[in-house]
Amino acid sequence: MSRRLYGYAGRILRLDLTRRVAVKSETGYDLARDFIGARGFGAKILWDEVKPGIDPLCPENKMVLSFSPLTGTSAQSFHRLFAMFKSPLTDGYFRSTGGGFFAAEVKFAGYDAIIIEGRAEKPVYVWICDDDVEFRDADHVWGATVDGAAEILREETDRNARMLVIGPAGERLVRIACLVTEDYRTPGRGGGGAVWGSKNLKAIVVKGSGRPELFDPDLFKELVEEQVDVYRRSPLFDAFHRLGTNSVVYEFYTLGHNPTYNFKNVELENVEVWRPEVLERYIVKHYGCFACMIACGKKWKLTMGPYAGLVWDFPEYETHWSFGSTCGVTNLEAIAYANMLCDRYGLDTISAGAIVAFAMELYEKGIITERETDGLRLRWGDGDVVVELVRKIALREGFGDILAEGVARAAEIIGRGAERYAMHSKGLELPAYDPRAAKAHGLSYATSNIGGSHMIGWNKYEILGRPERVDPLSTEGKGLLAKIVQDQVAAYEAAGWCAFAELVQTVGYGSVDRTMGWIGSILYAATGVEEFRNPGYLWIIGERVYNIERAFNVRDGFSRRDDWLPERFLKTPFPRQPARGQVFELDRLLDDYYSARGWDSRTGIPTRVRLEELGLGYVADELEKIGRL
Amino acid sequence: MSRRLYGYAGRILRLDLTRRVAVKSETGYDLARDFIGARGFGAKILWDEVKPGIDPLCPENKMVLSFSPLTGTSAQSFHRLFAMFKSPLTDGYFRSTGGGFFAAEVKFAGYDAIIIEGRAEKPVYVWICDDDVEFRDADHVWGATVDGAAEILREETDRNARMLVIGPAGERLVRIACLVTEDYRTPGRGGGGAVWGSKNLKAIVVKGSGRPELFDPDLFKELVEEQVDVYRRSPLFDAFHRLGTNSVVYEFYTLGHNPTYNFKNVELENVEVWRPEVLERYIVKHYGCFACMIACGKKWKLTMGPYAGLVWDFPEYETHWSFGSTCGVTNLEAIAYANMLCDRYGLDTISAGAIVAFAMELYEKGIITERETDGLRLRWGDGDVVVELVRKIALREGFGDILAEGVARAAEIIGRGAERYAMHSKGLELPAYDPRAAKAHGLSYATSNIGGSHMIGWNKYEILGRPERVDPLSTEGKGLLAKIVQDQVAAYEAAGWCAFAELVQTVGYGSVDRTMGWIGSILYAATGVEEFRNPGYLWIIGERVYNIERAFNVRDGFSRRDDWLPERFLKTPFPRQPARGQVFELDRLLDDYYSARGWDSRTGIPTRVRLEELGLGYVADELEKIGRL
Repeated sequence: MSRRLYGYAGRILRLDLTRRVAVKSETGYDLARDFIGARGFGAKILWDEVKPGIDPLCPENKMVLSFSPLTGTSAQSFHRLFAMFKSPLTDGYFRSTGGGFFAAEVKFAGYDAIIIEGRAEKPVYVWICDDDVEFRDADHVWGATVDGAAEILREETDRNARMLVIGPAGERLVRIACLVTEDYRTPGRGGGGAVWGSKNLKAIVVKGSGRPELFDPDLFKELVEEQVDVYRRSPLFDAFHRLGTNSVVYEFYTLGHNPTYNFKNVELENVEVWRPEVLERYIVKHYGCFACMIACGKKWKLTMGPYAGLVWDFPEYETHWSFGSTCGVTNLEAIAYANMLCDRYGLDTISAGAIVAFAMELYEKGIITERETDGLRLRWGDGDVVVELVRKIALREGFGDILAEGVARAAEIIGRGAERYAMHSKGLELPAYDPRAAKAHGLSYATSNIGGSHMIGWNKYEILGRPERVDPLSTEGKGLLAKIVQDQVAAYEAAGWCAFAELVQTVGYGSVDRTMGWIGSILYAATGVEEFRNPGYLWIIGERVYNIERAFNVRDGFSRRDDWLPERFLKTPFPRQPARGQVFELDRLLDDYYSARGWDSRTGIPTRVRLEELGLGYVADELEKIGRL
Repeated sequence: MSRRLYGYAGRILRLDLTRRVAVKSETGYDLARDFIGARGFGAKILWDEVKPGIDPLCPENKMVLSFSPLTGTSAQSFHRLFAMFKSPLTDGYFRSTGGGFFAAEVKFAGYDAIIIEGRAEKPVYVWICDDDVEFRDADHVWGATVDGAAEILREETDRNARMLVIGPAGERLVRIACLVTEDYRTPGRGGGGAVWGSKNLKAIVVKGSGRPELFDPDLFKELVEEQVDVYRRSPLFDAFHRLGTNSVVYEFYTLGHNPTYNFKNVELENVEVWRPEVLERYIVKHYGCFACMIACGKKWKLTMGPYAGLVWDFPEYETHWSFGSTCGVTNLEAIAYANMLCDRYGLDTISAGAIVAFAMELYEKGIITERETDGLRLRWGDGDVVVELVRKIALREGFGDILAEGVARAAEIIGRGAERYAMHSKGLELPAYDPRAAKAHGLSYATSNIGGSHMIGWNKYEILGRPERVDPLSTEGKGLLAKIVQDQVAAYEAAGWCAFAELVQTVGYGSVDRTMGWIGSILYAATGVEEFRNPGYLWIIGERVYNIERAFNVRDGFSRRDDWLPERFLKTPFPRQPARGQVFELDRLLDDYYSARGWDSRTGIPTRVRLEELGLGYVADELEKIGRL
């Protein structure tokens, strides 16, 4: 008999789509203690269960949806949904995260994780109502947009059910397709939608009636009160609450963190329309995820131009950039409309916009012409063309069928030097920061286990100057700084926390240590796991998670040569202040990073010593067995 | 103290938008006895309260939303919403009708009618929760599409509230804008959306908890059981239940009731795709209005082409025609998409398609060119152009601003002989039947008090050959036949009945008399009003309603010269079987009709004798006073 775990639902649900069988197992004490939950669980289960060399779109790929012991409690902002899988974009480990109410609802239904495996013979959806798990035919919703399918599924399950759904993009195996919650708090990146599409899985619908039981409810309540208080006092709270991620769109542009024209430039005309006071006018409603007082979600209303009438979730910071800056577009209506299309079709907005920008640069350079683009003139700045290309990508229509492969594969198909303009790392399209203007942040792009993601190592020290300022242009100590942030994020995300919320709290405290201390305490109050009380242990869990993710990729053949950034950043100097003249010193920074990580700096592969220190001896054994250590 | 009325909610709610005041008054016994409810109430209240000569878009116009004593009971299909107002398209009396759950919900909240008057200073919506009536600011939803606004209003009132909403088209005073229910069972015709727009009224949201009390519940139950039984036995039930109005799309085309190319022709290539077995494949869900077992509503899913992914209410028979046949389009995806746009923008689908067809014919004839059309090539059969024009009309964008006036006014603006191609009567765009192929039905087009409507006198004898067959091409007795159907419909609609449902029941009985007998009985069982037991009395009510509607128009200057049809029908012979060579003999048919009505055949104005026989002496007095009798 294992020790009692509080906070956790206590069960893991395995959905075998091939056999249409659901199996429940106990959430192991060791798994909980070693990986907390959420991203931690996914990293461990994927390592254990997904064999190297498989095609991400074959039945042998798996997806783990997992949650934390804090998910579904009154702790603020710990209710993220984490999805881990082998990515059809990067052919490596992936972690994608979204918000809303789905994660809490699954906890209420009684599960800490859902493992999805196999492939249904024909379209299905899964209806989870507490203990009851049904595999149901989904022919009638196959082909439907997310909103269309969600409406029908709600009617045939429960009006208040929560769900994850794929749209036509996922069904068509578009490699940038995503999962979408019924309230559009999308785990966007990495092609999880295509993984579901390949498995003939249209949706998971869930309703739960249980509540997690806490180890020390009084201490827990006290710590939540402290959190609420810190949130309120944080200088970031108001901005996030009022404008969400839009609060930094204009500011970051001025700081040079908003590259334009497919990273060719950092300037954009007419960008004054992105100032907070303009963006604020579009808001008609504020909303939040489960138990999050920040409520950074905003609904926008468009009243002018060809897209007038639309009321939809606003384009987040990254989406302003992807359909805006990097395509040379400042037309907010077109950006918002393209964002809506992505939600309905189930497309990652970052990758979608980045792909359009890539196509626009190819068109500018004459590498493609109207002959290839189905007659579309892909001119920089044309928001209507962005909207049209998003639709074509989602439906794999004409030229969109090539772009649907992501920039790396599309460049290979197109040839003629197109790969020079494919701005990605490990196949994942790069987001809205320029590595030359923030070196540790750029190092996270290069070394990230999931490719060009801004979230897995978002460098608050460099970008926000918080909790203390670090010169973003210096290379000094950046290997360690990148590592620290990556490990922090991995620990927070193993606890199911939201990155924006962590930022609000850490800036509120003015100290990462205090945040780490608080999170250790609340994890302990929730679970009763003694080890969690020790912040040092949380750092170890973060590093453990990061290393096992790395090992997953190493086992699949990844090494230093994959820790790569496009040539543009390495050779072309940054064109304006505050980073004028800067390039990204990839090799030097990588050496520094591997050294800080204790990895083999020649191969970028973790050493046995390091792995064993992290309690990952079994990982070292397996890597050694296949000659990767 | 007036006599007790059962079945009725007992109150009429007056919304004075100018003063933001709600006034409740008792539903008068005499009003109930003389006009039953629904269309009858609206006709009477409009006659009493809307003065002649006013601009339909000024604050002095009113709209009456009214319901019947059967609405909200278990009687099947009596839950229609009726909206009566002076129309900005016809400048005359209008009655528009929609389905769904709104009418029943208003009854549950305790009202038999809502009278909307005045003009709010700035956008408002009205939230009715039983006795509580609130005028609320609607700035945040002004400009939003129907779906966008409905979602927000639901969240700030009650998740299960029912509502009527206008979209951007109504706000922009598009003359073919309509009201839309939250479930898209739209009272579509006549421009009611523009009337709300002119009053700054965005929505009425309602939640009710009461239930109408019946006079004789046992008799009522028995009669509903009879109805359910007759429905089931009716040869029309299965077809309506399975395919809705789509069941006749192909059949009516073959019968010549589906004019093509703006009534220039009756042939269309590739129309085989409209056969029931093809249309059926699009259906993913059946649904119905409140207490209606026919459930003729269908949700379609599009899986191919540029509109793939859409799940939406299917295009009804008339919409197939308006975006299809009359525009030369057989692309079902484009038709379904244009239909969705109309629901979201709040546009009448019949008029919208008819206007596009009008523009296409002008383009074909060279009366307009790309210069006028913002560069669009308005070629017959191009479904994507239909979609684009619908958007432009709804938003009054470019050329759409002219078309938003309706064909009659647009023809005047365009000039150059455009009016020859404006297929309307009294300003209302004509629907999917050719007057030359069904003479009494055509006569209803010409004489209808609301202009070119197919519903106000839908001639089942001619078109369906039910309950008995009448030769559609003969002119013999057609004045009387048109009158009989118009009066029947007016009686049924005063009782709040759905025209399709009436058809199912009458064909089930095989007799109009049996239907009239049944409806008299059930009205009596519901209300206790003795007079309703007599079917002869119901005929009188039908005729009374029809005559008071006529008188409204006469008071506003209408006469025989307005009972008009476009020259195309009068001079150009019908081009193929079964009506080859036929024209519409307008003058002869009008003479016959006025004679059957007992109206002055020179002026088309009711006589004092007839009005007095119908209990409308006060109407005769007023018409005489202003010299119109």
